[in-house]
Amino acid sequence: MNPVEIIKRKRNNSLLSREQIKYFIEGYLKGDVTEYQMSAFLMTVYFNGMNEDETFYLTEIMLNSGVIVDLDYLKMPKVDKHSTGGVGDKTSLILAPLVAACGIAVPMISGRGLGHTGGTLDKLESIPGFNVNFTIQDFKRIIAEIGVVMIGQTEELAPADKRIYALRDVTATVECIPLITSSIMSKKLAEGADALVFDVKIGHGANLPDHDQSLELAEKLISTSKKFGKKAIAILTDMEQPLGRNIGNWLEVEECIDLMNGGIVPDLYKLNNVLAGAMIFLGGKAGSIDEGEKIAEEKLMDKSAYKKFLEMVKIQNGDVGYVKDWTNLKRAKFRKEIKAKEKGFVSELVAGDLGFTAIELGCGRKKTNDKIDYLSGIILKKKCGDEVYEGEVICELYAEHEHMLEKAVSRLEGSVKVTKEKPVLKDLIIDILY
Amino acid sequence: MNPVEIIKRKRNNSLLSREQIKYFIEGYLKGDVTEYQMSAFLMTVYFNGMNEDETFYLTEIMLNSGVIVDLDYLKMPKVDKHSTGGVGDKTSLILAPLVAACGIAVPMISGRGLGHTGGTLDKLESIPGFNVNFTIQDFKRIIAEIGVVMIGQTEELAPADKRIYALRDVTATVECIPLITSSIMSKKLAEGADALVFDVKIGHGANLPDHDQSLELAEKLISTSKKFGKKAIAILTDMEQPLGRNIGNWLEVEECIDLMNGGIVPDLYKLNNVLAGAMIFLGGKAGSIDEGEKIAEEKLMDKSAYKKFLEMVKIQNGDVGYVKDWTNLKRAKFRKEIKAKEKGFVSELVAGDLGFTAIELGCGRKKTNDKIDYLSGIILKKKCGDEVYEGEVICELYAEHEHMLEKAVSRLEGSVKVTKEKPVLKDLIIDILY
Repeated sequence: MNPVEIIKRKRNNSLLSREQIKYFIEGYLKGDVTEYQMSAFLMTVYFNGMNEDETFYLTEIMLNSGVIVDLDYLKMPKVDKHSTGGVGDKTSLILAPLVAACGIAVPMISGRGLGHTGGTLDKLESIPGFNVNFTIQDFKRIIAEIGVVMIGQTEELAPADKRIYALRDVTATVECIPLITSSIMSKKLAEGADALVFDVKIGHGANLPDHDQSLELAEKLISTSKKFGKKAIAILTDMEQPLGRNIGNWLEVEECIDLMNGGIVPDLYKLNNVLAGAMIFLGGKAGSIDEGEKIAEEKLMDKSAYKKFLEMVKIQNGDVGYVKDWTNLKRAKFRKEIKAKEKGFVSELVAGDLGFTAIELGCGRKKTNDKIDYLSGIILKKKCGDEVYEGEVICELYAEHEHMLEKAVSRLEGSVKVTKEKPVLKDLIIDILY
Repeated sequence: MNPVEIIKRKRNNSLLSREQIKYFIEGYLKGDVTEYQMSAFLMTVYFNGMNEDETFYLTEIMLNSGVIVDLDYLKMPKVDKHSTGGVGDKTSLILAPLVAACGIAVPMISGRGLGHTGGTLDKLESIPGFNVNFTIQDFKRIIAEIGVVMIGQTEELAPADKRIYALRDVTATVECIPLITSSIMSKKLAEGADALVFDVKIGHGANLPDHDQSLELAEKLISTSKKFGKKAIAILTDMEQPLGRNIGNWLEVEECIDLMNGGIVPDLYKLNNVLAGAMIFLGGKAGSIDEGEKIAEEKLMDKSAYKKFLEMVKIQNGDVGYVKDWTNLKRAKFRKEIKAKEKGFVSELVAGDLGFTAIELGCGRKKTNDKIDYLSGIILKKKCGDEVYEGEVICELYAEHEHMLEKAVSRLEGSVKVTKEKPVLKDLIIDILY
C-alpha cells in the first residue's frame, strides 16, 4: 500500500476498504502521507464521493484518532444537537439549558464562526468572563453538576478532523457530503451522547444551499449515527432569511434571554421548540416530538430554561449580572438604518448576504486572529412577509467604527427587498427524518 | 484573487482566464500558493479538464517561467521529436543523428526512465563517459558545431514544469491530457525548434493506454504547437508489444548501432524512418513524409547516420571505442531464458509488464537515487506473430544479481503468450495527424 495508489483508487472511482482509509488517515497523522497528498485525496472524494461504508470507516478512524468521552457514569439520558450552520442561528443557547432542565444531559461541543455563519462559542464569549476552554475532566464535572456544558473542541477530541478540516478550508473541499458527515460525526460521537438531533439548513444562508444535497447530508448523518448505535433525528429547516431578529454575538444572546423571559420571536420560538422536542423525545422524556415540543414550551414559560441558562453562565465563569441586565440594551457605538423606499411587503432578506455583512460589521473573523466586536451586528425590525410603509425601518446596523457601516449598507444593496405583492413564504420546518 | 477561489472555480467547472492561471502558477513558484493547494488544483484539472485556451495559457506561463533558447543564429531548419514513452522505444538515438545528417538541426532535451518506460538519458549514459549535463551555452555551441545535441532538462528551462511534474507523480495526477500537453510543450518550446514531431503511443505499454485519449492528446499537442507558431505532426503508433528486440539501456544502444550498421529490426526500422521522414518533411528537405522516409533509408544505408552518431558521442565525451566495439556483445552477469511450453505462435508480449520486469532487472529506478545496471535487460528472440516450436527461446533476461532473475521470470507469467492460432497483429503506424 502507498498513498499514491490509494489516491488513484478513489480517483478511478473504486471503493476503498477500511484498511486503505485507515492507512491513509493514520499515515497523515504520522507524517507518512503529506499535506499535498491529503488535499489531492480530499479532491477525489469531492468528485467521486464515498458510499455508506466508506463514510462509516472514515468517521470511525477520525473518531478513534482521539479520546472518546465516557459519560456512562451519568444516570440520565444524554442528547446533543448539531446545526449545519446558518445566519442568526442561536438555538443552541436556548436548547441546551432547556433540555437539561428536563433531566436530559446535554454535553455540547460547539464551534466558532465560519464563513458567513456565526459560532456558538463566539456568542457565549460575548458574556464577559464566559469560559469555553475546559479540559475533558472539567467537562465531565460540570455536566455531572448541572446537566449541561458548552465548550469548544479540545486537542484531545478527533484530532484528525481538526487537521483535515483546516486543510479543506484552504483547498476548496468544504462542500462535500461524506467529508462533512465524517467531520460532524467524529466530533459528535466523541462527546459521549447516546442520541443526536441534526438541524440541517437549506437555502441561501446554508453551507449547502441545495435542497437535494441537504437531504442527502441529513440521510447520511442519520445512517452514520445508526451505524454507531446512536438514535438520531434530522430536521431540514429553511435558511433563506436569517433565523429570529438579531445577528451578531451579544445581540443574539440578548434575543435568547428575551425569549427565555417570555419574549416573542415566532420563527426562533418554533424552531427551538421542535428541536428541543426531538431531543426530549430521543431522551425518552416524551412519547413523540410533538409531546416534546409541548414540554419545551412549558419549560420556557415557567422560566426553568432561563434558570438553567443562568446556572450554566455561572459555572462557566460568565458575568451573571451582565446577563440579568439584558433589558438595558447594549449596542455598538455607531448605528445606521435601512429603510423601505416604497410601500409594500418585505420579500427577501438574503441570509448569506446578511451574514457576510455582519462579518464586515465586526461580528466575525476574516483571518484567524481577528478581534470580534461583540456588540455590533444587525437587528431585523421586519421579517419576510411583513408589511412596510415608505421610509419605515427594515433593519438597524451596529458597528464600533463608522466606516464599517458605509461599506455594510452598500453591501446590502439588493439583499433587502420590498415588493408590492405579499411574498409566498417557505415553510420553516421542511422535513423531519428518522 | 486568492488560491482557494481559483481551485473552486475549476472545481465548479468554470473556465479560468489567463490572469487566473498566471496568478496560480506564478504564486506557486513564489510560495504564495502552497503545495497542497497546487495538488488540489491539479486534481480538479484531472476531473474537469482544460479547454484549448486554458491549455495554451498554462503552457505559455510554464514556458515563460524559465529561459527560452534562441537558435536563430543557426542558418538551418530546427526540428525535434517527442515520444509519449514506451517500452523498448529507442528511436531518438537513431533519429537525432540521422536527421542532423540531412542538414536539419536537432536540439533534443530528453528525460530519464519513468514508471515502466525507459529514458533516453539513461540509455545514453550506458556509453561510458557520455555527458548529458550541459549548460545552455554548451548546448548552443554543440548544435552549432555538429547539428545535434542530446541533453537533460536543466534548471533554467520551464522550472514550473519541473516542480509541477514532481508533484503530479506523487499525487496521482499524471494521466491528464491538458497537464501532459502543457508539460511536454513547455519543455519542447523552450528548446528553440521551429517544428515538432510527436510519437503518441497507444496500447498496454503506453502511458495513456486508451485510443481515444491518445488521439485527444495528439490533437491537443498539434493545436498547442500551432498556437505557438510551430509546425507539427503527430503519429499515433502501437505500443502493445515492445518496440524492437532489446529492452534495457546498453542493450537498446547496441540495437540502434546495429541498425545504423545495416542490421534488420523491422518495426524499429519502420517507425524510425516514418518519424525521421516527418522531421525531414517539416524541415523542408522533402516534399512529403514518404519522400522523407526514403531519404532516411538512404542515410541509414550510406552510414551517414552512424557517422553523425559517433560525432555526437565524441563531442559529448562518450567512449567512442566502447561504441565501435558493439559487436563484442556486453551482457550482465546472469542470464535466464523464457521458452515456449508448446508449439504455436507468439500472440502476446505485454509491453507494460515487460517494461516493469526490466526495472526489476536493474534497468530503471524505483526510487530517485537507485543505481542503474546498464547491461541488464531483456532480449526478445521472437516478436508477436512469430512461430515457435516447443522449448524454443522466446526471450532472454539479463541481470547482475541472480535473485532478480527469479523474481522477473515469475513476474512475466501470463505476459508472454503462445497460441495455436496465428494472432492478428495491430498496425504499427495507426494514424498520422497534421
